[in-house]
Amino acid sequence: MIVEKLAIVGAGLIGGSFALALKRAGAVREVLGLGRSPASLDAALERGLIDRAVGWPEAGQADCILLALPVGDTAAVLKKLAPHLKAGAIVTDAGSTKANVVATARAALGDRFADFVPGHPIAGSEQSGPGAARADLYQGKKVVLTPQADTHAGAIATVKALWEAAGAQVEMLEAELHDRVFAAVSHLPHLAAFALVDELAQRADGDTFFRYAASGFRDFTRIAGSSPEMWRDIALANREALLTELDAYVAALQVLRSVVAAEDADALLAIFSRAREARNDWVHKKP
Amino acid sequence: MIVEKLAIVGAGLIGGSFALALKRAGAVREVLGLGRSPASLDAALERGLIDRAVGWPEAGQADCILLALPVGDTAAVLKKLAPHLKAGAIVTDAGSTKANVVATARAALGDRFADFVPGHPIAGSEQSGPGAARADLYQGKKVVLTPQADTHAGAIATVKALWEAAGAQVEMLEAELHDRVFAAVSHLPHLAAFALVDELAQRADGDTFFRYAASGFRDFTRIAGSSPEMWRDIALANREALLTELDAYVAALQVLRSVVAAEDADALLAIFSRAREARNDWVHKKP
Repeated sequence: MIVEKLAIVGAGLIGGSFALALKRAGAVREVLGLGRSPASLDAALERGLIDRAVGWPEAGQADCILLALPVGDTAAVLKKLAPHLKAGAIVTDAGSTKANVVATARAALGDRFADFVPGHPIAGSEQSGPGAARADLYQGKKVVLTPQADTHAGAIATVKALWEAAGAQVEMLEAELHDRVFAAVSHLPHLAAFALVDELAQRADGDTFFRYAASGFRDFTRIAGSSPEMWRDIALANREALLTELDAYVAALQVLRSVVAAEDADALLAIFSRAREARNDWVHKKP
Repeated sequence: MIVEKLAIVGAGLIGGSFALALKRAGAVREVLGLGRSPASLDAALERGLIDRAVGWPEAGQADCILLALPVGDTAAVLKKLAPHLKAGAIVTDAGSTKANVVATARAALGDRFADFVPGHPIAGSEQSGPGAARADLYQGKKVVLTPQADTHAGAIATVKALWEAAGAQVEMLEAELHDRVFAAVSHLPHLAAFALVDELAQRADGDTFFRYAASGFRDFTRIAGSSPEMWRDIALANREALLTELDAYVAALQVLRSVVAAEDADALLAIFSRAREARNDWVHKKP
């Protein structure tokens, strides 16, 4: 048993999978659930993701509270939770951006900020909601924690132990570096996929184009099927790093454009070969 | 039996799968094979993709000759084949671009151009070579033919019947429209994936980025694992349409950039929502 009472705010894919994994591992005794939608909480109860649906006062009495919700909701939720936090209660989150969550939490939690452990599980699915939760979602996946200089070591250790009990590998990153890295390998690709699909969809003859799209297009654009609300929040929360990545990407596309325009076969082959080699290296290094 | 003798120039994934499917369907009696690499031809013989490896004089005596090779090789191959073509021999190809193949074939074949049927099977795999060939590669897949005003109707009908015997659905498109459509839904996504991976790989701290890349990145960049030579040829062969698509894509990214910079949450949500809807519609319409 790592903590007696765990509360999850948002009993969907991310929060529900965390709760399921910890129950299965015997790492928590009781899971309390909070959420915007009563139907979701009912479904979470039915699936055994949570033991009880509770309000903010009772959630504040949990030993650890996980926020598993769109990052844009963090400020409002912390404001509701803060007055009820018992001494020593640890708060953590699962948001895809970290610097803005840290700033939000610092403002909302005041002197309780030292018990806030910012986190980001690198796992997910296009599916969402309590029905999509699974005990093995985090098995072998990375979870990044971005604690601050004033975060309590005990709080970090507890959150780390919980994620490890859920099967994850925990790594520490500085929050700004986290945001730069994920702007490049996650946020930018999502925006690039959304932009490509929308650009085609906006054409008067768009249907002709979609009609011949095949498996390469399907994989390239799979992430354009992701939640628009979640990605709006992420794009705004990580705006600065994302703009830097967008500029670097557009610059790379312009280089490619000039090479194609100049019919520079050698330069094209060099770019494509480097890219394939880098990707193959990456694929083979993955666990 | 649709034709007695089929010759395939390039006995790899595309040509070998065509031959396998037609043999299984009883649509051809004998398959002749040509290729640059003796080892590939041996492998194709061993796997039963071809019945005999032959030279250009004998290939020209086949009833139908399929070119299944990088589009950049089309001119050289047609030049070798042309002097040996028997009367009525039909030549077709499987290249990913069509307007330049049409121009190349017209120049190389002269008055025999009317028996050339430009084609493009919308099927493939990251794998290549004779070992990757399978009889069902074209099952349910589209094949686009782009015959010209002076192409013999009989040649078109024969090539159409062969692809249908291989399990494919044959459609006719004007060559320029074909190239515009595939520039948008295939060639641009490939370049966009190559550019993204290469841009990261070129960074001094690129390893840190790749280290945290996950499933969204994997699918978005899968096509960056494709053959650099093949994509160099395609980018050059379809240069004009590709430059138009690159410009449209960069413009769409710039719109997205300005919306993120302005923190325009509604506009972001609108773009992401339209893209998701268009992609979901496309996925559900697919056979």
